[in-house]
Amino acid sequence: MQLSSSLLENAVNEFAKLPGIGKKSALRLVLHLLKEEESDVKKFSDAIAKMRSEIKYCKKCFNISDADLCDICANISRKQKQICVVENIRDVIAIENTQQFNGVYHVLGGIISPLDGVGPEQLHIDELVQRVKNDEVEELIFALNPNIQGDTTIFYIQRKLQDLPCKITTIARGIAFGGELEYADEMTLGRSLTNRLPVENYVK
Amino acid sequence: MQLSSSLLENAVNEFAKLPGIGKKSALRLVLHLLKEEESDVKKFSDAIAKMRSEIKYCKKCFNISDADLCDICANISRKQKQICVVENIRDVIAIENTQQFNGVYHVLGGIISPLDGVGPEQLHIDELVQRVKNDEVEELIFALNPNIQGDTTIFYIQRKLQDLPCKITTIARGIAFGGELEYADEMTLGRSLTNRLPVENYVK
Ligand SMILES: [Zn+2]
Ligand SMILES: [Zn+2]
Repeated sequence: MQLSSSLLENAVNEFAKLPGIGKKSALRLVLHLLKEEESDVKKFSDAIAKMRSEIKYCKKCFNISDADLCDICANISRKQKQICVVENIRDVIAIENTQQFNGVYHVLGGIISPLDGVGPEQLHIDELVQRVKNDEVEELIFALNPNIQGDTTIFYIQRKLQDLPCKITTIARGIAFGGELEYADEMTLGRSLTNRLPVENYVK
Repeated sequence: MQLSSSLLENAVNEFAKLPGIGKKSALRLVLHLLKEEESDVKKFSDAIAKMRSEIKYCKKCFNISDADLCDICANISRKQKQICVVENIRDVIAIENTQQFNGVYHVLGGIISPLDGVGPEQLHIDELVQRVKNDEVEELIFALNPNIQGDTTIFYIQRKLQDLPCKITTIARGIAFGGELEYADEMTLGRSLTNRLPVENYVK
């Protein structure tokens, strides 16, 4: 695509680097921004830059946070001894949207996947084990995508915790095997959380 | 959608203001940027802000430009007496991509549409008439979307120019009536430019 302005071209190329945005969509977005007030476009670009440079991760659960502890970990009305273990913060958001969970989270930051070169040491697994020990956690609820990597991760963590008096469950398989948790509708996800199972019934 | 960080929430809300981007996609884009290097995200946000604050419009044709005159108007190897009249700069880009046009452009900045409250005075029509007079333009090629508003606009401009020795043509109707010029494939658009017609055969 030949554009008559290098300013325009830069902006289009930057947008086109985003996932799922091709050159044509990028141009459409940029031309839209061009019609907006300069102050509104500044608000847009500032919000992105500020988000990236100032965002923090909760020291306890690795959720995204504006402070050292996220709102969920800092909320004393939530059950701090019931931890829902998820892959990433999109899953935290999906589960929060069900409004059916009143415990706290632990964001692993990924999932064990030897084929992708992701081992346990790259994930926040040690921190989870420490949390379970130090905070006398009563229940770990695994809410991982139902696939081989999810099962491997559950199995690995379960073994690390086998001497501790912590109940380990997983969300019910309301979601088809191979499906993506974050795309599940709120009903399905909420129900699979309510119907969670002890993990020994789950990973064979 | 409840998010655990106001920085994240702002960024998502800003993305979700863009056309065709819902909250879920906005979150996906923001989380993608969160994983990128801070310097790369800065490049993204700077490119957008700079584009909006520094962009100029060509004084002659109203195409987007980095200088007073756009590259096309400044290019002496292009036929400066053959002007292709388009609605917006997306159309300039679409036609440039056909590589079948070696004249120059005039960007109207819209199309006459009384129902949307757009009259001739809001468009760069007077400037076009002046250009035709002052530069002894030999041919105006209308490349407007084939719909009622396009026809109205052609008719209006044609009447303003009827005493001048300038040939007035429109691109051939290779594109279905009611279709969008910018979505036409390059073949169709290129061919309809080659097969352009005198305007009297076109607007009845
Ligand atoms: Zn937290
Ligand atoms: Zn120009």
